[in-house]
Amino acid sequence: MSDAKDKSSEPAAEGPAPKAVVNRLSLYLRELQHLVRDGHETTSSSHLGSLLGFTDAQVRKDLAYFGHFGYPGIGYRCDELIVAIRRILGTDQHWPVAIVGTGNLGRALLGYKGFGNQNFRIVAAFEVDPNKVGAIIDGVRVFHFDDLAAVVKQHRIRLAMIVVPAPSAQAVADKLVAAGVEGIVNFAPVTITLPEGVTQVGVDLAIELEQLSFAVARRKGEGLG
Amino acid sequence: MSDAKDKSSEPAAEGPAPKAVVNRLSLYLRELQHLVRDGHETTSSSHLGSLLGFTDAQVRKDLAYFGHFGYPGIGYRCDELIVAIRRILGTDQHWPVAIVGTGNLGRALLGYKGFGNQNFRIVAAFEVDPNKVGAIIDGVRVFHFDDLAAVVKQHRIRLAMIVVPAPSAQAVADKLVAAGVEGIVNFAPVTITLPEGVTQVGVDLAIELEQLSFAVARRKGEGLG
Repeated sequence: MSDAKDKSSEPAAEGPAPKAVVNRLSLYLRELQHLVRDGHETTSSSHLGSLLGFTDAQVRKDLAYFGHFGYPGIGYRCDELIVAIRRILGTDQHWPVAIVGTGNLGRALLGYKGFGNQNFRIVAAFEVDPNKVGAIIDGVRVFHFDDLAAVVKQHRIRLAMIVVPAPSAQAVADKLVAAGVEGIVNFAPVTITLPEGVTQVGVDLAIELEQLSFAVARRKGEGLG
Repeated sequence: MSDAKDKSSEPAAEGPAPKAVVNRLSLYLRELQHLVRDGHETTSSSHLGSLLGFTDAQVRKDLAYFGHFGYPGIGYRCDELIVAIRRILGTDQHWPVAIVGTGNLGRALLGYKGFGNQNFRIVAAFEVDPNKVGAIIDGVRVFHFDDLAAVVKQHRIRLAMIVVPAPSAQAVADKLVAAGVEGIVNFAPVTITLPEGVTQVGVDLAIELEQLSFAVARRKGEGLG
């Protein structure tokens, strides 16, 4: 461990980008979109970093994983960098998305405005409750879960969100994978197992609160060391 | 950049722990809790890592930020490590939490089972809609937003979740901070500015999908090289 002492903890721009870097790309993209909305044509790594609390070196190294985007004396052209990041993230294309479960969280996601801006569109919802099947929620039709394979195929759906109670999550995931879905966001508070080649992102909403309790407890000297 | 070439990208166990490490602590905690539930008394860095797709070295270095937890020839005692991580994360104490906004996402959070397991309890919800004020949702009383300062003080609330439309998020954050809240999870799809000393975690649900589109597009060779 000690050989890394005094070394920068910033990643080197070599090898595949760590997940944390891909995550930061999403944040850079958001800030660039805000900058363009506010009339900015160019920005710099230090400005972009300052908006997010990162150093300029962090911004430069993150982007360096994917290419060279800046211009000497100018910095980054916002529009250009947005196009580049969207291409890296794959959101230069449209992604039809399925959602399984239409409880409160499912309905919140169906009405969530932040997906469309990034080229994601929920095109189908799935339910087992016969009273909900056939309904249209925020413009999205609710299908019966039994029809999942056919609808996924018809709409060429490759990404899905699981918003069902924990005990059902694995069975839902299995069915999504069997239907050809390649990426799953799992909101159910349980770990699901997926075959190789299918990407999973788990969302455990308590983790966000833990990041806060860590910071707040520590600030007041209530935590360890 | 090149001086880091061929060096391990694992962090050294020195200085303050990066956010990513704190985030992984939450993941370790979840897996340890599952292990205990499944009857395991001990585990190892390689087992814990394999459950999450991390190397054993990553697990050891992450934990080394906070102390020495393993035993030679035994590994980690699950119960002991759970207690230690909760203490680090500050969740060895109870955290009363406020939520502002009771739309679909707000109601989903009020019913979310994952908070209580980690010692977070939503104790008050806030609304401006007079038709909702006074209601009890999942056992939580809905107060008028005007009463926020008094209720936050009465319940000693230090953490809050913002689940209001984007244009209202900053004003809500300002009022929470003025009332003494020290940590905010912001679900509104907008960046909010907080004074130093207040911790913010933003949740942009499209980011999870972007992590998927990145992985899926790249796997099929649709993205950049």
